[in-house]
Amino acid sequence: MSEYIEHDVNGVSVGLVKKKYHTFAHPPNEILLESGVKFGPITIAYETYGALDLKKRNAVLIEHALSGDSHAAGYYHPDDPKPGWWDIMVGPGKGIDTNRYFVICSNILGSWMGSTGPASINPKTGRPFGLEFPVVTIGDMVNAQKALLDSMGIEKLLAVIGGSIGGMQVLEWCVRYPDMVEAAIPLATTTKHSALAIAFNEVARQAIMADPNWNNGDYYNGTKPNLGLAVARMIGHITYLSDESMRLKFGRRLQDKSDFSFNFDADFQVESYLRYQGRKFVDRFDANSFLYITKAGDYYDLGKQHGAGSTVKAFSKAKAKFLAVSYTSDWLYPTYQSKDMVKAMKKNGLDVSFCEIEAEWGHDAFLLPNAHLTALVRGFLDRVYREVR
Amino acid sequence: MSEYIEHDVNGVSVGLVKKKYHTFAHPPNEILLESGVKFGPITIAYETYGALDLKKRNAVLIEHALSGDSHAAGYYHPDDPKPGWWDIMVGPGKGIDTNRYFVICSNILGSWMGSTGPASINPKTGRPFGLEFPVVTIGDMVNAQKALLDSMGIEKLLAVIGGSIGGMQVLEWCVRYPDMVEAAIPLATTTKHSALAIAFNEVARQAIMADPNWNNGDYYNGTKPNLGLAVARMIGHITYLSDESMRLKFGRRLQDKSDFSFNFDADFQVESYLRYQGRKFVDRFDANSFLYITKAGDYYDLGKQHGAGSTVKAFSKAKAKFLAVSYTSDWLYPTYQSKDMVKAMKKNGLDVSFCEIEAEWGHDAFLLPNAHLTALVRGFLDRVYREVR
Repeated sequence: MSEYIEHDVNGVSVGLVKKKYHTFAHPPNEILLESGVKFGPITIAYETYGALDLKKRNAVLIEHALSGDSHAAGYYHPDDPKPGWWDIMVGPGKGIDTNRYFVICSNILGSWMGSTGPASINPKTGRPFGLEFPVVTIGDMVNAQKALLDSMGIEKLLAVIGGSIGGMQVLEWCVRYPDMVEAAIPLATTTKHSALAIAFNEVARQAIMADPNWNNGDYYNGTKPNLGLAVARMIGHITYLSDESMRLKFGRRLQDKSDFSFNFDADFQVESYLRYQGRKFVDRFDANSFLYITKAGDYYDLGKQHGAGSTVKAFSKAKAKFLAVSYTSDWLYPTYQSKDMVKAMKKNGLDVSFCEIEAEWGHDAFLLPNAHLTALVRGFLDRVYREVR
Repeated sequence: MSEYIEHDVNGVSVGLVKKKYHTFAHPPNEILLESGVKFGPITIAYETYGALDLKKRNAVLIEHALSGDSHAAGYYHPDDPKPGWWDIMVGPGKGIDTNRYFVICSNILGSWMGSTGPASINPKTGRPFGLEFPVVTIGDMVNAQKALLDSMGIEKLLAVIGGSIGGMQVLEWCVRYPDMVEAAIPLATTTKHSALAIAFNEVARQAIMADPNWNNGDYYNGTKPNLGLAVARMIGHITYLSDESMRLKFGRRLQDKSDFSFNFDADFQVESYLRYQGRKFVDRFDANSFLYITKAGDYYDLGKQHGAGSTVKAFSKAKAKFLAVSYTSDWLYPTYQSKDMVKAMKKNGLDVSFCEIEAEWGHDAFLLPNAHLTALVRGFLDRVYREVR
């Protein structure tokens, strides 16, 4: 079985970093979630790279996607096999240059990479929340990040950047806290999930909930619903690729075989790859977090939440300069959705640049090394940085 | 919960029909499968509509797709709520006119709608085969149909028609038994599955095999792997639709609710629809058959089997006249794959008509009422029928 290393290290890393934690919303000062539920305390795990300048005007907030974490760049230990998930973009001299910018990446509310989520201990019961964890939204995730920035005394972000549901958080920042965002870079994202995107998320959730080990979300002291979570991940993984990228990467090539097995083993490399992705994922992710975060993505609807149903009205609240990016082969968040978003921004007279990048790697393209994206991000940040100085 | 009736009855049906059975390959005369395994006896369930003419030259063979059966048209009982699965196309005066043609539809080998498959009783053990059923191929399915036609004394088909993996059987007929096929109509199909199509099938299989009730295929005397099969069906169902059709059919409309539930119920209509499709499917299909038939689809590679890797070489064996049809929004078997197939046919000087039909309903379009398709099929069959008389 071959190993699949997806993202190569590229250039100089930020070096050794440390995960930090900020806890807020202690009782009785709970946070009011969009569902109407009061919830707290909340802990947010985060990392920072580079130095905050004296005026606190060089902060760049990175938003991660479904399975990401606060570890965007650098290494925890000298012998880590891989750096943070966006080390190709974040570091000295890179697209987001840590010699110049103070970069923050926090793990989203509802995840399990250090921030409060369904696997966290419920202080009222002393046991993991499971399904007692409240359903959270993209807006709630952004509110938690706002509390983190408040604790750092950062009143304005130079930029907020992220892809996929990270891109939704970018948009939400611009409309929820317009005075706190100088510039925004939503990548491979949408103002609301299509029926197709909801459908894939729902089937993935059903795969988890069909696993008897899921046990209605109460599995932390027993066997985990690894088979269901693996299937969920495989479904997701297909949607991150594209017909073209899968043809180039796998085609119909067989796995360690000269001919078909005539049984239900993995005959094709693409089958073996998906099984591997599923197995790998269960070691690093929590099934309930997968349910909560995909639900937050499905619920997200910028126009519904902030514009009484109109995306144009919602963007009337925004003030940021935008650089929006889509990818030709992304069929989960296709370019037409980015174009609709950009049109809504332009109708409000916002300063928007839009670029559709030619890339065969589907939705995942925003995580892969791409000189075009790096140049776009570097140039855009440079322009904004010069304007605010 | 609303009911989803997908296919309306359209025009005059063939009326009451009866499922018939043909059993062949009795021991020691077993059939040699493509895997090298000898297997038998094999029973094929089939139905016929219309009358075979004296010269036995008006037979049209219909090939069904993954979850289809021999019941292509008409009703078994006067109070059946729905007719056969292609009643919109097959009947008096319809696209495949049963006043003129003798129409045969047989359930494929490996299915469980009457033909021998993994749920059939293994005569050697007295118990259902389960995974002792051999892995069968599209070629094996066609060989079984050949035996059925032999039993009827039909030496040449006027036409063979089918979509999806039914279309693969159409292609296989033309290359495996070129002298038996006058004309062929492959719809929404491909000469070989792409990595993307294999990936979706594999994840669906994994969903079934992850269900503990699957029990390595041995569940016929116990609880069936309904949860796994339902997830598998949901995955498949998404791939049969399209981004556009799902937007038109569901968009982000909520199900019986004025706002989000903030739990893991089905909030969106598309979620409710998929859950319904999953539940409905487990009542009418066998999980092991799903595994076997999807595997046969993934294995299918016309060029590998018949042309030493070359589709062009494989089609050098064919003699039929072809009408190939693809659909604009079919992303499971996209038009480019049909075009590649048509090119390979043309390089052999074959008589080929190709039409890409504008349709928003994705891969499923071939099963839906479409006046354009009906006219194409009627005209093509009429031409061939006149030529052979």
